[in-house]
Amino acid sequence: MIYLTSDYTSGAHPDIMERLVATNMEHSAGYGLDSYTLEAQRLVREVCGAPDAEVIFLVGGTQTNATAIDGILRHHEGVLAADSGHIAVHEAGAIEASGHKVLTLPHHDGKVVAEDVERYVTTFYADATHEHMVAPGMLYISQPTEYGTIYTRGELEALSEVCHRHSIPMYIDGARMAYALQAEGADFTLRDIARTADAFYIGGTKCGTLFGEALVVTRPHLVKALFSLVKQHGALLAKGRLLGVQFATLLSDGRYESIGRHAVRLAMKIREAMREAGYEAVVPSPTNQQFFELPNEVIDKLHKVAAFDYWGPRGTTCSTVRFVTSWATTEEDIATFIRAIRCAHEFADGDC
Amino acid sequence: MIYLTSDYTSGAHPDIMERLVATNMEHSAGYGLDSYTLEAQRLVREVCGAPDAEVIFLVGGTQTNATAIDGILRHHEGVLAADSGHIAVHEAGAIEASGHKVLTLPHHDGKVVAEDVERYVTTFYADATHEHMVAPGMLYISQPTEYGTIYTRGELEALSEVCHRHSIPMYIDGARMAYALQAEGADFTLRDIARTADAFYIGGTKCGTLFGEALVVTRPHLVKALFSLVKQHGALLAKGRLLGVQFATLLSDGRYESIGRHAVRLAMKIREAMREAGYEAVVPSPTNQQFFELPNEVIDKLHKVAAFDYWGPRGTTCSTVRFVTSWATTEEDIATFIRAIRCAHEFADGDC
Amino acid sequence: MIYLTSDYTSGAHPDIMERLVATNMEHSAGYGLDSYTLEAQRLVREVCGAPDAEVIFLVGGTQTNATAIDGILRHHEGVLAADSGHIAVHEAGAIEASGHKVLTLPHHDGKVVAEDVERYVTTFYADATHEHMVAPGMLYISQPTEYGTIYTRGELEALSEVCHRHSIPMYIDGARMAYALQAEGADFTLRDIARTADAFYIGGTKCGTLFGEALVVTRPHLVKALFSLVKQHGALLAKGRLLGVQFATLLSDGRYESIGRHAVRLAMKIREAMREAGYEAVVPSPTNQQFFELPNEVIDKLHKVAAFDYWGPRGTTCSTVRFVTSWATTEEDIATFIRAIRCAHEFADGDC
Amino acid sequence: MIYLTSDYTSGAHPDIMERLVATNMEHSAGYGLDSYTLEAQRLVREVCGAPDAEVIFLVGGTQTNATAIDGILRHHEGVLAADSGHIAVHEAGAIEASGHKVLTLPHHDGKVVAEDVERYVTTFYADATHEHMVAPGMLYISQPTEYGTIYTRGELEALSEVCHRHSIPMYIDGARMAYALQAEGADFTLRDIARTADAFYIGGTKCGTLFGEALVVTRPHLVKALFSLVKQHGALLAKGRLLGVQFATLLSDGRYESIGRHAVRLAMKIREAMREAGYEAVVPSPTNQQFFELPNEVIDKLHKVAAFDYWGPRGTTCSTVRFVTSWATTEEDIATFIRAIRCAHEFADGDC
Repeated sequence: MIYLTSDYTSGAHPDIMERLVATNMEHSAGYGLDSYTLEAQRLVREVCGAPDAEVIFLVGGTQTNATAIDGILRHHEGVLAADSGHIAVHEAGAIEASGHKVLTLPHHDGKVVAEDVERYVTTFYADATHEHMVAPGMLYISQPTEYGTIYTRGELEALSEVCHRHSIPMYIDGARMAYALQAEGADFTLRDIARTADAFYIGGTKCGTLFGEALVVTRPHLVKALFSLVKQHGALLAKGRLLGVQFATLLSDGRYESIGRHAVRLAMKIREAMREAGYEAVVPSPTNQQFFELPNEVIDKLHKVAAFDYWGPRGTTCSTVRFVTSWATTEEDIATFIRAIRCAHEFADGDC
Repeated sequence: MIYLTSDYTSGAHPDIMERLVATNMEHSAGYGLDSYTLEAQRLVREVCGAPDAEVIFLVGGTQTNATAIDGILRHHEGVLAADSGHIAVHEAGAIEASGHKVLTLPHHDGKVVAEDVERYVTTFYADATHEHMVAPGMLYISQPTEYGTIYTRGELEALSEVCHRHSIPMYIDGARMAYALQAEGADFTLRDIARTADAFYIGGTKCGTLFGEALVVTRPHLVKALFSLVKQHGALLAKGRLLGVQFATLLSDGRYESIGRHAVRLAMKIREAMREAGYEAVVPSPTNQQFFELPNEVIDKLHKVAAFDYWGPRGTTCSTVRFVTSWATTEEDIATFIRAIRCAHEFADGDC
Repeated sequence: MIYLTSDYTSGAHPDIMERLVATNMEHSAGYGLDSYTLEAQRLVREVCGAPDAEVIFLVGGTQTNATAIDGILRHHEGVLAADSGHIAVHEAGAIEASGHKVLTLPHHDGKVVAEDVERYVTTFYADATHEHMVAPGMLYISQPTEYGTIYTRGELEALSEVCHRHSIPMYIDGARMAYALQAEGADFTLRDIARTADAFYIGGTKCGTLFGEALVVTRPHLVKALFSLVKQHGALLAKGRLLGVQFATLLSDGRYESIGRHAVRLAMKIREAMREAGYEAVVPSPTNQQFFELPNEVIDKLHKVAAFDYWGPRGTTCSTVRFVTSWATTEEDIATFIRAIRCAHEFADGDC
Repeated sequence: MIYLTSDYTSGAHPDIMERLVATNMEHSAGYGLDSYTLEAQRLVREVCGAPDAEVIFLVGGTQTNATAIDGILRHHEGVLAADSGHIAVHEAGAIEASGHKVLTLPHHDGKVVAEDVERYVTTFYADATHEHMVAPGMLYISQPTEYGTIYTRGELEALSEVCHRHSIPMYIDGARMAYALQAEGADFTLRDIARTADAFYIGGTKCGTLFGEALVVTRPHLVKALFSLVKQHGALLAKGRLLGVQFATLLSDGRYESIGRHAVRLAMKIREAMREAGYEAVVPSPTNQQFFELPNEVIDKLHKVAAFDYWGPRGTTCSTVRFVTSWATTEEDIATFIRAIRCAHEFADGDC
């Protein structure tokens, strides 16, 4: 069986696992006060071109978002996000549980546009009753988005500009950052991310580690007492060096790049095969997540060789599905899957 | 250097690391919906003699406590705990951050006594203004306590009895449960824990895993929507099977027992050597944490061979220190350390 | 100057003020444990035909909503509401501050329709990832709505039916309930409110009292420890009898009815005069709030005789405005205002 | 029956009631944007000698404390308070409900001493694990305390000095401030309060108004978006002018002084009569609350002429009780009560 359900179905990239094994019997200080974590922090600052950034490693994405957003916002403020954003939909109310409203903007293929932020903020402050409403206190975006699409450098700069003009910090959820960086047409680097955002995280869990996210705060004093806040959110790993070892490995020797590149390349092969079979992607994603609307009979056939997720019906005969690649997806997996696409299409009676 | 600072200074027990490596390239469902997690849940229920218990695995202790306590309490209730309890002191306000007050009771070598619970509850409801106060909604205890001491089966039963008579669920923080179970004079089993408590967790992080705690809810319907609550608290691991693999290994082949036994045996050797050198333990701990009050010059000498934690001054010439053993502590470590104790004592000028 | 800005611009209805003065020097128990409050609670149960309902008086609407919703929901649940609902827009994030998400439904002239609730709930539970999302835990509606519209008895029953079929309590914000009850075409009574809702409040602040809302919980055990929860939310009035005296007066001798009737009748006069002048109401409100889109020059002229609120521009030459009547609006006020409408219209150059 | 149960058993001081009646039919802007509130704000600034202070009026004490403390603290911080403090005991967990821990200090007749604050803060930061603990982020004291005692000007200055040396804002709960200002031996004024505290409130509810507290923030920018925060806490009164009218009256023509003076003078008469009868006050309170330990048979006799609160048993034959005076207590009340004290004592068999 081929696994295209998600990019977190297997363990860690073999190089990372090897380092965990090699260092397993060592003793070190807990809570990220060890030398591996120091090295990983240095590497993060280096790849981001942000020598003064505060860097802390957390276990998972939801806790990273909740901690960072709680740390950035004042009590009366909420966080602007696309209505398709992970914090708005799939974090079980973690943001609200720490007291803050998610203020939604309409998404455009998963993305927020600068004009909508501008309009929201100016309309808000023009409203005579705005002190009775939740003030927009920061912007949350995902790069890539939950739909696999990416912001261009120009779009990041436009969002950053409008945010900073209104004194609103900009935060980027980079759960799948490796794939955005290696996407077709990606014209930005981690330095652009660090330059346009005030805080962001570089995802590990979905990009090759067993778990772990690197939270980077580039604006000085943006979050007070970050360490304590991480602890309060239950997000401080006792054996913190596990995060240090993993990120030191992930971010060295071009590994983050090769992991991203590999997965994107295989995803593009799926997209090309689908196109040849007559199926256009539902969303123009240049990253490792691909969404298609397929006849149910085609889906049934594909499910015989591959596991992948169902994203809801489209009428009575078609459905939307998602295919996700990762470092663990093999060339052979994709070759087999493409053969299946061709054959499934061959026998299909109808279209969507 | 010998490490006696804590039981989470190294990685995972080799058997556990081996299983993680062996299963690393497999694909599985996320969020704990995999077969390893199912097996681990089955094992937990078996060792606890609680076939109907709800079992879920979380990453760390603070998040487990915060999630469970938040799930058990209603908004107007607080949690009773020893004033030395982890949730009262060392969780950075995680319980309060989810809206609940920690109601403290005086500790007795780290323990809560049933009479104090009884008195608190009856005094509370006898107070005409109690509706203006925070109602005691559950009891939190640690087994072993933060001071290494343990509750006997009789003490657990007495606490359970007073709690249930007042309709207050009893919750046990078992971060170091392995060491309590193998303590000198321990007269209880996990079945007694499961029988007297309404919810508890079996600690992994401090007992041999890379990370992970097994939360067990034995009282039906005590916590509603536990899975969503774990997610909301940012405590749901994407690659949930990592917890399943680790706990399935930890709880089979007598590993949890042997890890606990090994660490306790070595801790007793330290205690015995200290006693011979004339130093009595500050707290009568029969587990892997040992606290001593030593002359500062002895401490300085011991620090040349071993790392361990300083717990504060006692007058001007002495201090309290803590020594902790684990599965990773070796016989040789302890032999070396005991020689150091003897020599340091030999040259010491004074007593405490 | 005529005041049509809101229904809370003056003090209390003279009968209520008189009772406050008459009882001012008496002594009584605090926190609502006095005889006036007992009498008011009895009256509330009587007019609602709910002899077993729990009744408690709070000071204002936002605190009543926040307390009731916090008391009804479990931690993992959110509250369904129209996207125009007061809790969704104008309570400064009070619901989120107590940890709960407001789940919005599209409004229809301010109203939620049963079909949308049904679709939301069924779609939610059909989603394989729903445990990662915020569960719909209750429904919030306003009667009348923020736009002055009302739910018919049939609509209330349809909403109640869908809610109860899905085990979701239904809560009604009755800040302006007096005006709904006396609206043209209103086919429901407080008994229907009490029968279809599980909890609701009868508004005082906007219906004749100095302040105060009567929270009624008809479903047994829906909210645990309501008194303590009210205290925790800072919503417990020390001199609780002030609420008792006011509500005992408000709900006796047909006062709630006559206050509502008076205000609605005058609002209808405004609507009729507007219609004659060629201006249709923006929303078909049969209650004391009337919304119109008027040429800015007409608005300027009307502002010379009356204070009223501006609700935002419509293009460059027109704007939406709101006129609100209350027990304190006089026949003479309305006669003057209607003359102003006629004259302003007479001289207006354009239309909207 | 004479009422000595509390200072909030009757309505408003007649002068205040008169002003509420006189202004009842006027129309004004809501939410404190009216001219009466402006005048009251001006008066508060004037009596406090704080021309730049931010002043906002709220309805009750618990909501004022919760709002101010929530506004002052960052998420990782807690509030230092006496373990007898109102926020620590009698606010149903309102502080914790907004996410903050109350860090208790031992009380000395209800008071916090500067040395304890100094010790707490220095011990806290000396602890190597302090980042895992809740940081002391502000100090809460009550003037007068819950036991009726008062801080001298020197004590306020000492507390202020230690707080500011450690960058910890100092907040004063002045629910009964009028009585502290007029206490025997009081050597401070509202100007001293405003000068030593960073924020505080001047109580109305217990000092003559129907309800209401004046929150004063003297340190610039201490609380961000105060108005929105008040709204979020459900503490914004729609008919805000009711607070303005009451405080404008309370703080003019020497009313706050005379109300305090009257109540204190009568309380001193009770104390003197008790002393003559051989009963010393349990706490040396120079304000309107007096605590005594009396034989139960004396208490029973006194209860025949006066209502007052029982504060718990002392052994089997005695109990502690509290007598409270207010503007509404009459000379005649006290004369009657003193006669009762003398007679009850006359027939008493035993002592305490």
